[in-house]
Parts: sequence; C-alpha cells; structure tokens
Amino acid sequence: MQLIENLKWRYATKKYDTSKKISSEDLEKIKEAIQLSATSYGLQLFKVLIVENKSIREKLRPVSWGQPQITDASHLLVFCSYDDVTDKDIEAYIDLKAQTQGLKVSDLKDYSDFMKMKMKEKSADEKQSWTAKQTYIALSNALNACAELKLDSTPMEGFEPESYDEILNLKDKGLKTSVVLAIGYRSEEDDTQNTKKVRKPLGAIFEKI
Amino acid sequence: MQLIENLKWRYATKKYDTSKKISSEDLEKIKEAIQLSATSYGLQLFKVLIVENKSIREKLRPVSWGQPQITDASHLLVFCSYDDVTDKDIEAYIDLKAQTQGLKVSDLKDYSDFMKMKMKEKSADEKQSWTAKQTYIALSNALNACAELKLDSTPMEGFEPESYDEILNLKDKGLKTSVVLAIGYRSEEDDTQNTKKVRKPLGAIFEKI
Repeated sequence: MQLIENLKWRYATKKYDTSKKISSEDLEKIKEAIQLSATSYGLQLFKVLIVENKSIREKLRPVSWGQPQITDASHLLVFCSYDDVTDKDIEAYIDLKAQTQGLKVSDLKDYSDFMKMKMKEKSADEKQSWTAKQTYIALSNALNACAELKLDSTPMEGFEPESYDEILNLKDKGLKTSVVLAIGYRSEEDDTQNTKKVRKPLGAIFEKI
Repeated sequence: MQLIENLKWRYATKKYDTSKKISSEDLEKIKEAIQLSATSYGLQLFKVLIVENKSIREKLRPVSWGQPQITDASHLLVFCSYDDVTDKDIEAYIDLKAQTQGLKVSDLKDYSDFMKMKMKEKSADEKQSWTAKQTYIALSNALNACAELKLDSTPMEGFEPESYDEILNLKDKGLKTSVVLAIGYRSEEDDTQNTKKVRKPLGAIFEKI
C-alpha cells in the first residue's frame, strides 16, 4: 500500500541540504494536496504562508527554539488558522458552493443558517481551537505529498506562536499561527535518517468494542 | 500523483450500504496507517476505539445529531486523546524509544527531562487542546488509507463529546473523544457522491513570502 510505504519512508528531518530547492512543479502538487484536504463543513478556514524570504526566516529561527530547519530547508510552510469565524465566512462558503455546484444561494439558506447558529454556540477560544485542529489535516496531507514526491519534511510545533503572528503580521490578516512545516532535501549528514521509527504496538493504540 | 487522485476520489459519505462490511485485512491497513502517523515528539498520546457493537452505536447516534452514518457504516472509529500528559507518559515513550533503537534509557535522560519540562509549561486546557490536534493527523491518514483502499469514509465533528466520553467510559481510561470517523461502503442511493467538490482557489489559500 503506497500510503503505508510513504509513511514508513518519511521522518522528521533534522538537517537539510541548503543547496537544494524544491521545484515549482513539486510545490504545486503539495499545494493541491493541501487544497483538497477535508475540513469541517468544508469551510477551509486556514491559510498557508510559503516563506522563502531569507531575512524573515532568520527572524523566525530564534523564536523557533533556534532550530536550523527554519532557515535551512528549501521552503517553510506556516499553517495559519482563522482567529475568528464570522457570518461572512459562512456566506463566502455558501457563495462558493452555489457557484461550484450550480445551485441558488437562496436554496442553501437553511444550511447557511444552521452553520451560523453552530458557530454562535462556540466561544472565542473554542472557535480558535477548532480552526487550529483543521490545519492538522492539511499538515498531514502535505507530509504525505512530500513523501510521495520523495521530498523531506519536518512538522514543527516548537515555536512561539505569538512571535510568529507578529513577525508575519498575522493579526491584521485575522490569522493565528497553528503549525509549521519545513520541506526540502535531507542533508547526507543528517544521522537521524537511519534511526528506527518508534511506534507503539497496535494493541496499545486500538481497542475493539 | 496517487495522493491527489485519492483526495479527489473521496467525499464525506452521507449514506452507507448497511449490508457491506470492511474486511479485516483492510482494517489492519487502516490501523497501520494510523499507527505510523506523525505526532508531536512521537509521543502518540491517543487511542482509537473501533466500534462495531450495535447497541453502543445506537446509543451514540442520538448524541451525534442523529446522523445515520453512526449506526449504518461498517465501522465507527472514535479517536480519543489523552486528557492529561504526565511524567509517566514521557517515561513510557523513552522506554519504547530505547528498546526500539537499542539505546540506554540513561542516555536519553536530558531528552526526557526536556519533554517533561515542556509539558509542565502547558496548562491543563493547553495539554488537552494539543493532544486533540494530534489526532487530526491520524484522522487524515485514516481518510487517505480508506481512499487508497476504495473504502468510503465520513469524518465527523457533529457529536456531543461529553456524551461520547460517558457512553464509552472514557473518563476511567484518561481519555477524551476528539473526532469520529465512519468507514464502510457508500450506498448507491447516496446522491452526494456525484456533487462537485467545493474548494477555494489556490490564491485564496496560499501566500508567498
């Protein structure tokens, strides 16, 4: 099974080859895999910043526990979730759905009202936690896309989200940094590439009921 | 690219064929894809309940907005995250890592201490939100495994987590319900299977910096 082979192949790369860049063709495939990710209600309440700019990445590194992947990988993908969900976001989705599926917006009014009601049931914190979780589905697809393309990647949570938000000007955009993914080509010197994957046995993860 | 083809093929199935069951071979592959999922520090702080039991699923349906997939799909996967992270969890991981990679536990002491310190920096709420997010990576791999196996699936957030925790006795197990996945075979009558996927254009999701 290709997915399983890809999951076995990938590892959280520690050291990148700074001379190798991901091609724009491969980057487009990663973007398409992210775009196709499932999200709750299909709302896609996230953005992904693709950071190549050197000086910005040099600013991000010290607020990322100094980890070298931040500056040394080919590209840095910063997954950002919406910091609020408004009626406007629901209406934008309904418009897109109507347009894509050849429906009338007025025929989707009940569905739109239902989603708006569901959003109002959530506190500000609940909304942020919820939109952040959705980005992990997109992150996972990006990891798998990279593995299929034989590109290396490092999913990263070791950073100061508030500093990212400030450096990347996210507040003005209504976004919050959720999770970061470095992508590129491993350095031959990365000695973690040959260490055995550590995974709990199936019996420790699954329970039949 | 197979991942993209799989992502295009899948859809959130609304109506299942109640007569068709997923084979145990396919179920094992889905389990392996979940097991191989990336998690923060590799800690794998989640469990997955595979619910076949009819009477339990009938109890879960009314607390899942009455959605028929809960009872009608072949299997129901309930992704549960640890409701706390303790020194014991870190030590269990360190033991497994030492055993898997042929290392001494004592050589991993600094790494163990670092993770324990990082956990202590998180509030109870932050820990729960963090472990819950990890389950979405596993969820995404389960979705992709199903698609590669040409099995249908429905990721579901429309349920009352507290009721799930109670019905499934999760409190005693130190777990919380995070997200639910129905898997099985679509009913031919499911008219959503032919509707066009709604996705924002790439320009609305990605920004180059």
